[in-house]
Amino acid sequence: MKEIQKITQRKDVKDAFAVIENLEPITQKEHILLTEIPAPPFKEAARAVKFKQMLEEAGADKVWIDSLGNVLALRKGKKPTKTVALDAHLDTVFPEGTDVKVKMKGDTLYAPGVGDDTRGLVAILTVLKAMEKANVETNEDVLFIGSLGEEGLGDLRGVKYIFQKNNPKIDSWISVDGDAIAEITNGALGSIRYKVTIKGPGGHSWSAFGLGNPHHALGKAIDSFTQQATAFTSSPGGKTSFNVGRIGGGTSINAIPFESWMEVDMRSESADRLKEIDAIFNTSINKAIADYNVTIKKGEALTVNIERIGFRPSGATDASSPLIQRTMASAKYFGAAPSLIIVSTNSNIPISKGIPAVTIGPGGRSSNAHALNEWYLNEKGAEGIKYTLLVLLSEAGVAK
Amino acid sequence: MKEIQKITQRKDVKDAFAVIENLEPITQKEHILLTEIPAPPFKEAARAVKFKQMLEEAGADKVWIDSLGNVLALRKGKKPTKTVALDAHLDTVFPEGTDVKVKMKGDTLYAPGVGDDTRGLVAILTVLKAMEKANVETNEDVLFIGSLGEEGLGDLRGVKYIFQKNNPKIDSWISVDGDAIAEITNGALGSIRYKVTIKGPGGHSWSAFGLGNPHHALGKAIDSFTQQATAFTSSPGGKTSFNVGRIGGGTSINAIPFESWMEVDMRSESADRLKEIDAIFNTSINKAIADYNVTIKKGEALTVNIERIGFRPSGATDASSPLIQRTMASAKYFGAAPSLIIVSTNSNIPISKGIPAVTIGPGGRSSNAHALNEWYLNEKGAEGIKYTLLVLLSEAGVAK
Repeated sequence: MKEIQKITQRKDVKDAFAVIENLEPITQKEHILLTEIPAPPFKEAARAVKFKQMLEEAGADKVWIDSLGNVLALRKGKKPTKTVALDAHLDTVFPEGTDVKVKMKGDTLYAPGVGDDTRGLVAILTVLKAMEKANVETNEDVLFIGSLGEEGLGDLRGVKYIFQKNNPKIDSWISVDGDAIAEITNGALGSIRYKVTIKGPGGHSWSAFGLGNPHHALGKAIDSFTQQATAFTSSPGGKTSFNVGRIGGGTSINAIPFESWMEVDMRSESADRLKEIDAIFNTSINKAIADYNVTIKKGEALTVNIERIGFRPSGATDASSPLIQRTMASAKYFGAAPSLIIVSTNSNIPISKGIPAVTIGPGGRSSNAHALNEWYLNEKGAEGIKYTLLVLLSEAGVAK
Repeated sequence: MKEIQKITQRKDVKDAFAVIENLEPITQKEHILLTEIPAPPFKEAARAVKFKQMLEEAGADKVWIDSLGNVLALRKGKKPTKTVALDAHLDTVFPEGTDVKVKMKGDTLYAPGVGDDTRGLVAILTVLKAMEKANVETNEDVLFIGSLGEEGLGDLRGVKYIFQKNNPKIDSWISVDGDAIAEITNGALGSIRYKVTIKGPGGHSWSAFGLGNPHHALGKAIDSFTQQATAFTSSPGGKTSFNVGRIGGGTSINAIPFESWMEVDMRSESADRLKEIDAIFNTSINKAIADYNVTIKKGEALTVNIERIGFRPSGATDASSPLIQRTMASAKYFGAAPSLIIVSTNSNIPISKGIPAVTIGPGGRSSNAHALNEWYLNEKGAEGIKYTLLVLLSEAGVAK
């Protein structure tokens, strides 16, 4: 807390806070501009190009788009020994063709993606501008990031690529994604997703009776997994969940299907327990299909394909770590009563690699994320951007 | 066989056979005409109106369309003590919009429905014409029928309605549906079809974890039923089958579904065994859902709805019965080596009511029933119609 007080009492930081206040109309204008550039999963390129241009105009030392499509902007530190990343994600959950025109009702902005995470993008842009205009210099290098694929089937592909490429090497990670300053994500809710497909020859329900039926085998697989997973998730340890979300297959009531499939989602607060339920899943599905195949009267054995379609590692940045302590002190500085929460965000990836990471809210109020009636209200919005700057400066160090 | 020889030696019957030969070009013309009037399931009205007009023109005593839409034509007998029905079905399996234009390749007619059962319709029409033109009189009343809903979800609704209405009361039933003279259907392959729907509150796979998941319950239901049904169908007795044909439900991989469903088909040669597997089905599904509900951690119990969407009773007309003996003798008269088979046809309904019934083939050659490339070749087609007349006359008696 003393560290935070000291930073906020500096003239250059006070100037930067004033810049953030003065930029409010511009911040709102750019928030609307970015919101109205569609960024569906796997189609973030148009928004990336614009965001790159905005970061260049704001004055970063070097701005580029990596070969996957992430936008990165480096602002050099004075005595760099490490790199601190400040990230928001480019993509929204909304498919191509969604109307993303912003509608104002009173002071509230309505548009798909206006909160999640376009508010995060514009917050880090204004942070960069404020640092430039007020000449706030950090000791460490700061890397501003507009990342790809945070939502759904994007499966954190942007942040995964950044840590795979490791250039520059990142030592500390701050994602801006959410809204309230009080909610600080230090825990990474991990998840694993599968599509299971069981196949057989198929045939007429009467004349080919006795052939393996993929739906019958799927029933055994689901029931076997459910029983074991229920016992496991009821045992003590970090909260762990499992879910068969969708099932399908079959052409007609009187045809033995040639295919049966299901989509399964498993989550855990604990990296170990996520591994354990993953093992239970794979073992129980394979055993169920093998057991079913023994009962087939004629024809070939059914085959099963277990395809992993998503993986987000679990973990946490320790509450006692400097990054989390600094983030909590910054939140308190703005009068918030912070609580630590566990969510699935871009921070899952650095956390899984043992790199300190936190996900913070950029302030203002928003709701209905992932719904067409998503909204954002700029209530104490400037405070959220100052908070973001303060967290960054506490981690990157302000140069004397 | 002696009875059959006697009938075929009569002058009026010989005349009728000659008429059938002479009518061949007309029969083919009307076969094409009827094929090209679409008759999708539940939409047989246009073909029914035309078929009624054709029966009127052929000279039946009374022709009408009942309140369901079946076409009936009564030809009075000379000393009637009973009524013999001669039936073919109006409907095809093909949905609205299917191209039913007949294409000729050599002598072969290609069109959806050209065999099943438009050939049957035109065969009974020509039988009526031949009786009229050759002045063949029967002792018993003869009821010519173009019936609705034999295929798929039609679930034999036409013939079910006719026996429910019971006006006129039918004492003997001959369906014309198939092709080869040698194949005589005396056995009714019964079937029962269900749609099972399991419902629950639904919710997010993580935050609402612990709520009942309808897919998990469906898995238990399928596996429990499959295990018991496999044991049952492996035990001695008439062949019996079961099949989960289609499954579905769920909106997203990370949402607990609010609904899960399956479609199930069960068949048996034996009425008793069909009842037994039906009982196994209902008991095992209900018990599986109850067992699953006990494991739910929070929220309301799942509900299950077991909706019967099809029922075709099993049974057989005894091979030693006069109707089957006469049919076999008639087939032999035309040089066929008849075999008795078990199929699902309109005859299922009279058979289940203890009324003698048989399903015969109208001759010619056809294949690919229920497929878009269905075809009919009029090879010895006249013989099939003579055979149909002979079976009818043997059962209805030729008036002295």
